[in-house]
Amino acid sequence: MAQMKIGGYLFQRIKELGIKTVFGVPGDYELVLLDMVLDAGVKWGGNPNELIASYAADGYARVNGYGAFVTTFGPGELSAYCGMGGQYAEYVPVAHIVGYPSTTAMKERAIMHHTLGNGNFSMYHEMVRNITVASTILDDPTMAAFEIDRVLNAMVYFSRPVYIGVPVDIGPQTISSVNLETPLQMSLPPNPTELENIVVDKITSLFSSRKNPIIIVDGGAVRNGVIQESSELIKLLQIPYFVTAMSKGGISEALGCFGGVYGGGASTDDVRRAVEGSDLVLFIGSYQSDFNTGEFTTQISPRVIVDFQRFTVNVFGKEYKLNMKYVLHRLTSVLQIAANKLLVKAQITWDPYPMDQLKIPEKLTQDFLWAALGRYFRSGDYVVAETGTSAFGILASNLMNTENVHMYNQTIYGSIGFATGAALGSFVAGKERNTIKRGVLVTGEGSLQLTVQAFSDMLRYGLNTTMFLLNNDGYTVERLIHGMEASYNKVPYWDYSKICELFGPSVKNKYYRIETAEELLKLLSDSEFNAAHCTQVVELILNKHDAPMSVIRTAQAVERFNEEKQSR
Amino acid sequence: MAQMKIGGYLFQRIKELGIKTVFGVPGDYELVLLDMVLDAGVKWGGNPNELIASYAADGYARVNGYGAFVTTFGPGELSAYCGMGGQYAEYVPVAHIVGYPSTTAMKERAIMHHTLGNGNFSMYHEMVRNITVASTILDDPTMAAFEIDRVLNAMVYFSRPVYIGVPVDIGPQTISSVNLETPLQMSLPPNPTELENIVVDKITSLFSSRKNPIIIVDGGAVRNGVIQESSELIKLLQIPYFVTAMSKGGISEALGCFGGVYGGGASTDDVRRAVEGSDLVLFIGSYQSDFNTGEFTTQISPRVIVDFQRFTVNVFGKEYKLNMKYVLHRLTSVLQIAANKLLVKAQITWDPYPMDQLKIPEKLTQDFLWAALGRYFRSGDYVVAETGTSAFGILASNLMNTENVHMYNQTIYGSIGFATGAALGSFVAGKERNTIKRGVLVTGEGSLQLTVQAFSDMLRYGLNTTMFLLNNDGYTVERLIHGMEASYNKVPYWDYSKICELFGPSVKNKYYRIETAEELLKLLSDSEFNAAHCTQVVELILNKHDAPMSVIRTAQAVERFNEEKQSR
Repeated sequence: MAQMKIGGYLFQRIKELGIKTVFGVPGDYELVLLDMVLDAGVKWGGNPNELIASYAADGYARVNGYGAFVTTFGPGELSAYCGMGGQYAEYVPVAHIVGYPSTTAMKERAIMHHTLGNGNFSMYHEMVRNITVASTILDDPTMAAFEIDRVLNAMVYFSRPVYIGVPVDIGPQTISSVNLETPLQMSLPPNPTELENIVVDKITSLFSSRKNPIIIVDGGAVRNGVIQESSELIKLLQIPYFVTAMSKGGISEALGCFGGVYGGGASTDDVRRAVEGSDLVLFIGSYQSDFNTGEFTTQISPRVIVDFQRFTVNVFGKEYKLNMKYVLHRLTSVLQIAANKLLVKAQITWDPYPMDQLKIPEKLTQDFLWAALGRYFRSGDYVVAETGTSAFGILASNLMNTENVHMYNQTIYGSIGFATGAALGSFVAGKERNTIKRGVLVTGEGSLQLTVQAFSDMLRYGLNTTMFLLNNDGYTVERLIHGMEASYNKVPYWDYSKICELFGPSVKNKYYRIETAEELLKLLSDSEFNAAHCTQVVELILNKHDAPMSVIRTAQAVERFNEEKQSR
Repeated sequence: MAQMKIGGYLFQRIKELGIKTVFGVPGDYELVLLDMVLDAGVKWGGNPNELIASYAADGYARVNGYGAFVTTFGPGELSAYCGMGGQYAEYVPVAHIVGYPSTTAMKERAIMHHTLGNGNFSMYHEMVRNITVASTILDDPTMAAFEIDRVLNAMVYFSRPVYIGVPVDIGPQTISSVNLETPLQMSLPPNPTELENIVVDKITSLFSSRKNPIIIVDGGAVRNGVIQESSELIKLLQIPYFVTAMSKGGISEALGCFGGVYGGGASTDDVRRAVEGSDLVLFIGSYQSDFNTGEFTTQISPRVIVDFQRFTVNVFGKEYKLNMKYVLHRLTSVLQIAANKLLVKAQITWDPYPMDQLKIPEKLTQDFLWAALGRYFRSGDYVVAETGTSAFGILASNLMNTENVHMYNQTIYGSIGFATGAALGSFVAGKERNTIKRGVLVTGEGSLQLTVQAFSDMLRYGLNTTMFLLNNDGYTVERLIHGMEASYNKVPYWDYSKICELFGPSVKNKYYRIETAEELLKLLSDSEFNAAHCTQVVELILNKHDAPMSVIRTAQAVERFNEEKQSR
């Protein structure tokens, strides 16, 4: 049986997961390991800092299925924990590989750099247990292959982040490659047939008594990989379906019966009435977080909800231990047979995007911007919108007339700075898979400043990013929540026309400064701009008090929510 | 008795610690709290991201005594943990104040943004216990004042970071201000008199039998506030004294009997002989970490060491529970009386800086650079040198001819990216105290890229920073350790002449590109450059294989150390 290095084994498994690029930042505890990345035929996607590496791996995994990044023990890994928190919250399976000090240094409790100076080496592993579904330090070569497989299988099973520490003396040790003959378990185990049949029949029978069934495809559907199953169900039933803030752009809006974006009080009145008046809601991958529910203003009775989750299906409050993926698949098959006699074709009697007008205002407004972007997006676009104004605003961009616009956001975790790093990773993945035509980053200047150096990777990796940069002189979402004129909501003034000159002086790029709606329309209809053959920075000058409807409604709900909690 | 808000109470205590500026990044869970920062008469030093805020608070605390920064629950705080790890390792007392979700949202286990989506709110607090000496979540208003005092007193006592979570509904609640009448305990409790006398007498008696006594003032002396006591002892005894990598620039080298920089095999041969040949080493604040000991190559017998620590004094291997601060003070008093009859004046028979020559090479070299910078530094300079080439290189800069050059580095924790953020904080503190004349940042381009946006704060806060940017086309220290030509040790190519144009277009600045030793000499003798009336960026073009002597020696020792550990 062949022998291989432990590090080689690890990256062989990484390759098996379909990961072609590993992100990260070098550090002396991991340098030997990085040689093995390259030896395994995996690309090294180095980044300026570790937070960006974790975001990039996140964006990469959203496109590619799985992601990985490498950092050094201590400062490196700690700088990336924020990215891992988001991966955990949003079901993004990413392996964080950490170069550890040598096993003897640990045994001798030596005061190594990157420790806390007290001879302890376990504290970071203790910390990271809180934000992973499995973790290991490979301190025993004989168990290394088993440990690697255990942890990566957990990542796949739970679709959440894991952590693998590789001591500097362990990575190069050789072991048998025999375990590689057993592939990782890439799909969830099938459901118990009898229970699945009972539940599917139960759901099927509902269609004969309920008159206004609808489907909501929420973020959990996107993140847990049931978009194909959801789409097939929608195409079959042709009943109104809705997306949420979290799932926006995760499923096509062009399936013929799209109802709009639902988020309780943050929705339009028509959408809210349609959803909350339904007597049967197939809620696929529901994720009841504050930002995904208009700050808990959704009002759907549990007595009408069939809730589909990764590991459970819940019918009107009764929970069954079933994976939704197989249930959805079976449900579609069963309904297909019964389709003609069971179903009334539903009508969409309202406009899913009532704000979707191009009445040209004098200055550039938010409402105009999002309507215009809806017309700009097209098949093959990868769009990452930052938490805050951008992610909320883009909910008003109409995608009903185009297929294959892929959008990614971080509605649950809501870490600003995420979008720039995640865009980097998702564009890299799109390029590798040859599925991306244009990479579009939509962010605000306050958010961009957190992780701006990710932009230099976009330049050097030749991603031809188009960045729409909303410049409204500060943290607008925070302003709307509290402190409209407070100094702490200001951010430093930067000259964004210089961003490519600093970060990629030899890379072809264009900068546009847009102040009026007319200028924006002109740019968005320009064929060269649309072709996106180089990096393009579009700075959009917006009034700092202007915000999209959904942001205003949510921000008001948030401040109300905070105040209520204070007064109790 | 007056009533005040809990947040007001907290920032009143922060003020009591002498903290005039609080760093941080706004977030909606903390916005109400930020109003109270300003209400307490404390300045808000907003930053582009939280890692930078934590570094800035660290740099501020090193100058000012204590520091504080505010972030939001989840992403905000996690992004700052790396900074806290460094504060813990290096005895930097910083309070991390975190805006938490409301107590009712936590009680109801609501899926709030910034959580992991599972109704749990305690995980970040669990994590942070590993890198703090005390922490609290203020979920009970009646205990809030006690909790705040407990945690801040622990920060002062241990000189290490703490964590205070303030739920959004708790900050504005009012409590009695009566506890404020009891001040925080700003000094360590005195030692038991009898034991202190015994130990001081024991140490004093050693001077009659030992012939070659020396003093090493290590980083623990700087970080635990005994530089005045150390200086008085040196001035009295006039025996050779040494600094280390960690303490470089933390004590004057102009006290008349400076012996050099000691770090085992990383030292010059003369220095090593002088230290390791001594028969009595007063080791003040010794910190035996890898980077501070030339990778554990220091060779001083425990039978000659008197080891002075924050909470212990150890004489030839026997430990006493005594605070070194009072012991050093008393020791100087006692020796003063006995001075004439006990002591032999020692001779410095070697050159502490044998590389300190200004033989002008053709191209700019590392050895020339550090010698030249030694002549450039002057009283009132605050110098922050980045981990890696800069911090090691600057050990060769001769400070024997000037007083009051303050240097800060992170030898123990060694997080690259630290210097830019810490420089920001230490320059802000120096400006507030009116003790800084020039703020000097010495860093490499790989390190700068991690936290480059801190530079925009330096510009907007009017700090007139002079940045020496070592551009050697990648991570030189990593290269020397492993992977001389490896692609992962390359960093993106930036045009640093544009850094001020992007980050502070309206701030006066100058950019210099230096390729030869002559150009550097000319610049360093230019009076306008020396006056530093504006922000100055000096890009130093260096050969990527060139490195200072101490770096080469340490890097070799590190790779040897790693290999030894691998082969065992």
